Amino acid sequence: MSDRYRDAFSEIDADPNQFLCVVEDGRRIVGTLQLSFIPGLSREGARRGQIEAVRIARDRRGAKLGEAMLAWAIRECRARGCALVQLTTDKARPDAHRFYERLGFAPSHIGYKLKL
Amino acid sequence: MSDRYRDAFSEIDADPNQFLCVVEDGRRIVGTLQLSFIPGLSREGARRGQIEAVRIARDRRGAKLGEAMLAWAIRECRARGCALVQLTTDKARPDAHRFYERLGFAPSHIGYKLKL
Repeated sequence: MSDRYRDAFSEIDADPNQFLCVVEDGRRIVGTLQLSFIPGLSREGARRGQIEAVRIARDRRGAKLGEAMLAWAIRECRARGCALVQLTTDKARPDAHRFYERLGFAPSHIGYKLKL
Repeated sequence: MSDRYRDAFSEIDADPNQFLCVVEDGRRIVGTLQLSFIPGLSREGARRGQIEAVRIARDRRGAKLGEAMLAWAIRECRARGCALVQLTTDKARPDAHRFYERLGFAPSHIGYKLKL
Protein backbone atom coordinates (compact mmCIF):
# COMPACT_ATOMS: atom_id res chain seq x y z
CA MET A 1 0.00 0.00 0.00
CA SER A 2 1.28 3.44 -0.91
CA ASP A 3 2.50 5.75 1.88
CA ARG A 4 0.02 8.30 0.60
CA TYR A 5 -2.85 6.17 1.86
CA ARG A 6 -1.15 5.64 5.24
CA ASP A 7 -0.46 9.37 5.60
CA ALA A 8 -4.06 10.24 4.68
CA PHE A 9 -5.40 7.67 7.13
CA SER A 10 -3.22 9.09 9.92
CA GLU A 11 -4.46 12.60 9.17
CA ILE A 12 -8.11 11.48 9.23
CA ASP A 13 -7.53 9.48 12.41
CA ALA A 14 -5.94 12.45 14.21
CA ASP A 15 -8.72 14.91 13.31
CA PRO A 16 -11.68 14.88 15.74
CA ASN A 17 -13.96 16.16 12.95
CA GLN A 18 -13.27 13.24 10.58
CA PHE A 19 -14.84 9.80 10.80
CA LEU A 20 -14.43 6.73 8.61
CA CYS A 21 -17.28 4.23 8.68
CA VAL A 22 -16.70 0.72 7.38
CA VAL A 23 -19.17 -2.14 7.05
CA GLU A 24 -17.57 -5.52 7.69
CA ASP A 25 -18.88 -8.85 6.46
CA GLY A 26 -16.75 -11.40 8.29
CA ARG A 27 -13.16 -10.36 7.55
CA ARG A 28 -13.99 -8.36 4.44
CA ILE A 29 -14.87 -4.68 4.26
CA VAL A 30 -17.89 -4.29 1.96
CA GLY A 31 -18.79 -0.64 2.50
CA THR A 32 -17.09 2.63 3.41
CA LEU A 33 -18.09 6.23 4.00
CA GLN A 34 -16.29 9.32 5.32
CA LEU A 35 -18.12 11.82 7.49
CA SER A 36 -16.65 15.29 8.12
CA PHE A 37 -17.99 17.92 10.49
CA ILE A 38 -17.54 21.50 9.29
CA PRO A 39 -18.26 24.46 11.58
CA GLY A 40 -19.45 27.63 9.86
CA LEU A 41 -21.03 31.06 10.26
CA SER A 42 -23.66 30.61 7.51
CA ARG A 43 -27.21 29.63 8.43
CA GLU A 44 -26.88 31.18 11.92
CA GLY A 45 -23.63 29.47 12.77
CA ALA A 46 -24.74 26.02 11.64
CA ARG A 47 -22.43 23.02 11.80
CA ARG A 48 -22.59 20.85 8.67
CA GLY A 49 -22.03 17.17 8.23
CA GLN A 50 -20.40 16.27 4.93
CA ILE A 51 -20.36 12.83 3.41
CA GLU A 52 -17.61 11.73 1.02
CA ALA A 53 -16.25 8.50 -0.36
CA VAL A 54 -19.36 6.34 -0.26
CA ARG A 55 -18.27 2.98 -1.67
CA ILE A 56 -20.02 -0.38 -1.66
CA ALA A 57 -18.51 -3.65 -2.93
CA ARG A 58 -19.96 -4.40 -6.35
CA ASP A 59 -21.27 -7.83 -5.30
CA ARG A 60 -23.10 -6.37 -2.26
CA ARG A 61 -25.07 -3.64 -4.02
CA GLY A 62 -28.83 -3.75 -3.68
CA ALA A 63 -28.53 -5.12 -0.12
CA LYS A 64 -29.40 -1.82 1.62
CA LEU A 65 -25.86 -1.31 2.95
CA GLY A 66 -25.89 2.22 1.55
CA GLU A 67 -29.14 2.99 3.36
CA ALA A 68 -27.65 1.65 6.61
CA MET A 69 -24.45 3.69 6.27
CA LEU A 70 -26.36 6.86 5.43
CA ALA A 71 -28.75 6.31 8.33
CA TRP A 72 -25.72 6.02 10.64
CA ALA A 73 -24.18 9.20 9.21
CA ILE A 74 -27.40 11.20 9.54
CA ARG A 75 -27.82 10.02 13.17
CA GLU A 76 -24.25 11.15 13.94
CA CYS A 77 -24.97 14.52 12.34
CA ARG A 78 -28.06 15.01 14.51
CA ALA A 79 -26.10 13.93 17.60
CA ARG A 80 -23.41 16.55 16.84
CA GLY A 81 -26.00 19.28 16.34
CA CYS A 82 -25.62 19.70 12.57
CA ALA A 83 -28.30 21.75 10.80
CA LEU A 84 -27.44 20.28 7.42
CA VAL A 85 -25.98 17.16 5.80
CA GLN A 86 -24.36 17.63 2.40
CA LEU A 87 -22.63 15.61 -0.28
CA THR A 88 -21.94 15.74 -4.00
CA THR A 89 -22.36 13.02 -6.59
CA ASP A 90 -21.06 12.86 -10.13
CA LYS A 91 -23.65 14.09 -12.63
CA ALA A 92 -23.14 10.87 -14.60
CA ARG A 93 -24.50 8.62 -11.81
CA PRO A 94 -28.31 8.60 -12.04
CA ASP A 95 -28.48 5.54 -9.74
CA ALA A 96 -26.80 7.55 -6.98
CA HIS A 97 -29.13 10.50 -7.62
CA ARG A 98 -32.20 8.32 -7.13
CA PHE A 99 -30.66 6.84 -3.98
CA TYR A 100 -30.01 10.21 -2.30
CA GLU A 101 -33.33 11.69 -3.40
CA ARG A 102 -35.13 8.69 -1.90
CA LEU A 103 -33.39 9.51 1.41
CA GLY A 104 -34.72 13.08 1.29
CA PHE A 105 -31.67 14.93 -0.05
CA ALA A 106 -32.52 17.88 -2.32
CA PRO A 107 -30.47 18.33 -5.54
CA SER A 108 -30.43 22.10 -4.99
CA HIS A 109 -26.80 22.86 -5.84
CA ILE A 110 -24.14 22.41 -8.50
CA GLY A 111 -20.93 20.78 -7.29
CA TYR A 112 -17.84 22.45 -8.77
CA LYS A 113 -14.40 20.79 -8.71
CA LEU A 114 -11.02 22.24 -9.67
CA LYS A 115 -8.12 19.79 -9.97
CA LEU A 116 -4.76 21.22 -8.90
CA MET B 1 -25.02 39.17 18.14
CA SER B 2 -26.39 35.73 18.88
CA ASP B 3 -24.27 33.32 20.95
CA ARG B 4 -24.65 30.84 18.09
CA TYR B 5 -22.38 33.00 15.93
CA ARG B 6 -19.83 33.38 18.75
CA ASP B 7 -19.82 29.65 19.39
CA ALA B 8 -19.42 28.88 15.68
CA PHE B 9 -16.59 31.41 15.38
CA SER B 10 -14.78 29.84 18.36
CA GLU B 11 -15.13 26.40 16.81
CA ILE B 12 -13.72 27.59 13.46
CA ASP B 13 -10.92 29.48 15.21
CA ALA B 14 -9.87 26.42 17.24
CA ASP B 15 -9.78 24.05 14.24
CA PRO B 16 -6.44 24.06 12.35
CA ASN B 17 -8.25 22.92 9.19
CA GLN B 18 -10.65 25.89 9.08
CA PHE B 19 -9.81 29.37 7.81
CA LEU B 20 -11.93 32.48 7.49
CA CYS B 21 -10.78 35.05 4.95
CA VAL B 22 -12.12 38.59 5.13
CA VAL B 23 -11.49 41.52 2.80
CA GLU B 24 -11.42 44.85 4.64
CA ASP B 25 -12.01 48.24 3.07
CA GLY B 26 -11.01 50.68 5.79
CA ARG B 27 -12.99 49.57 8.87
CA ARG B 28 -15.65 47.71 6.91
CA ILE B 29 -15.59 44.04 5.91
CA VAL B 30 -16.67 43.80 2.25
CA GLY B 31 -15.92 40.15 1.47
CA THR B 32 -15.73 36.82 3.29
CA LEU B 33 -14.91 33.22 2.46
CA GLN B 34 -14.39 30.06 4.50
CA LEU B 35 -11.75 27.53 3.49
CA SER B 36 -11.78 24.01 4.98
CA PHE B 37 -9.14 21.34 4.49
CA ILE B 38 -10.50 17.79 4.37
CA PRO B 39 -8.18 14.78 4.41
CA GLY B 40 -9.43 11.69 2.60
CA LEU B 41 -8.58 8.28 1.14
CA SER B 42 -10.19 8.88 -2.28
CA ARG B 43 -8.04 9.90 -5.23
CA GLU B 44 -4.94 8.23 -3.73
CA GLY B 45 -5.27 9.85 -0.32
CA ALA B 46 -5.83 13.36 -1.66
CA ARG B 47 -6.44 16.29 0.65
CA ARG B 48 -9.26 18.58 -0.54
CA GLY B 49 -9.78 22.26 -0.05
CA GLN B 50 -13.42 23.21 0.30
CA ILE B 51 -14.78 26.71 -0.10
CA GLU B 52 -17.97 27.82 1.65
CA ALA B 53 -19.67 31.06 2.55
CA VAL B 54 -18.42 33.29 -0.27
CA ARG B 55 -20.05 36.67 0.36
CA ILE B 56 -19.36 40.07 -1.16
CA ALA B 57 -21.01 43.33 -0.09
CA ARG B 58 -23.67 44.23 -2.64
CA ASP B 59 -22.15 47.64 -3.37
CA ARG B 60 -18.70 46.14 -4.05
CA ARG B 61 -19.69 43.51 -6.59
CA GLY B 62 -18.01 43.70 -10.00
CA ALA B 63 -14.76 44.94 -8.40
CA LYS B 64 -12.90 41.60 -8.70
CA LEU B 65 -12.95 40.98 -4.93
CA GLY B 66 -14.32 37.49 -5.58
CA GLU B 67 -11.47 36.73 -7.98
CA ALA B 68 -8.94 37.93 -5.39
CA MET B 69 -10.47 35.84 -2.59
CA LEU B 70 -10.63 32.73 -4.78
CA ALA B 71 -7.04 33.24 -5.95
CA TRP B 72 -5.96 33.39 -2.28
CA ALA B 73 -7.93 30.23 -1.47
CA ILE B 74 -6.50 28.29 -4.43
CA ARG B 75 -2.95 29.37 -3.47
CA GLU B 76 -3.54 28.13 0.10
CA CYS B 77 -4.85 24.82 -1.25
CA ARG B 78 -1.72 24.35 -3.36
CA ALA B 79 0.49 25.27 -0.39
CA ARG B 80 -1.25 22.61 1.75
CA GLY B 81 -0.84 19.95 -0.95
CA CYS B 82 -4.50 19.67 -1.95
CA ALA B 83 -5.23 17.74 -5.14
CA LEU B 84 -8.67 19.30 -5.50
CA VAL B 85 -10.64 22.43 -4.61
CA GLN B 86 -14.39 22.04 -4.34
CA LEU B 87 -17.48 24.09 -3.62
CA THR B 88 -21.19 24.06 -4.32
CA THR B 89 -23.42 26.88 -5.54
CA ASP B 90 -27.17 27.12 -5.59
CA LYS B 91 -28.61 26.02 -8.96
CA ALA B 92 -30.57 29.30 -9.06
CA ARG B 93 -27.42 31.48 -9.26
CA PRO B 94 -26.26 31.60 -12.90
CA ASP B 95 -23.99 34.57 -12.15
CA ALA B 96 -22.06 32.45 -9.65
CA HIS B 97 -21.88 29.58 -12.15
CA ARG B 98 -20.29 31.82 -14.77
CA PHE B 99 -17.87 33.15 -12.15
CA TYR B 100 -16.60 29.71 -11.06
CA GLU B 101 -16.47 28.35 -14.61
CA ARG B 102 -14.34 31.35 -15.64
CA LEU B 103 -11.90 30.38 -12.87
CA GLY B 104 -11.62 26.84 -14.26
CA PHE B 105 -14.01 24.96 -11.95
CA ALA B 106 -15.89 22.11 -13.67
CA PRO B 107 -19.64 21.71 -12.91
CA SER B 108 -19.21 17.94 -12.80
CA HIS B 109 -21.33 17.12 -9.74
CA ILE B 110 -24.75 17.61 -8.19
CA GLY B 111 -24.74 19.12 -4.70
CA TYR B 112 -27.27 17.43 -2.41
CA LYS B 113 -28.41 19.00 0.88
CA LEU B 114 -30.54 17.53 3.63
CA LYS B 115 -31.84 19.90 6.31
CA LEU B 116 -32.06 18.37 9.78
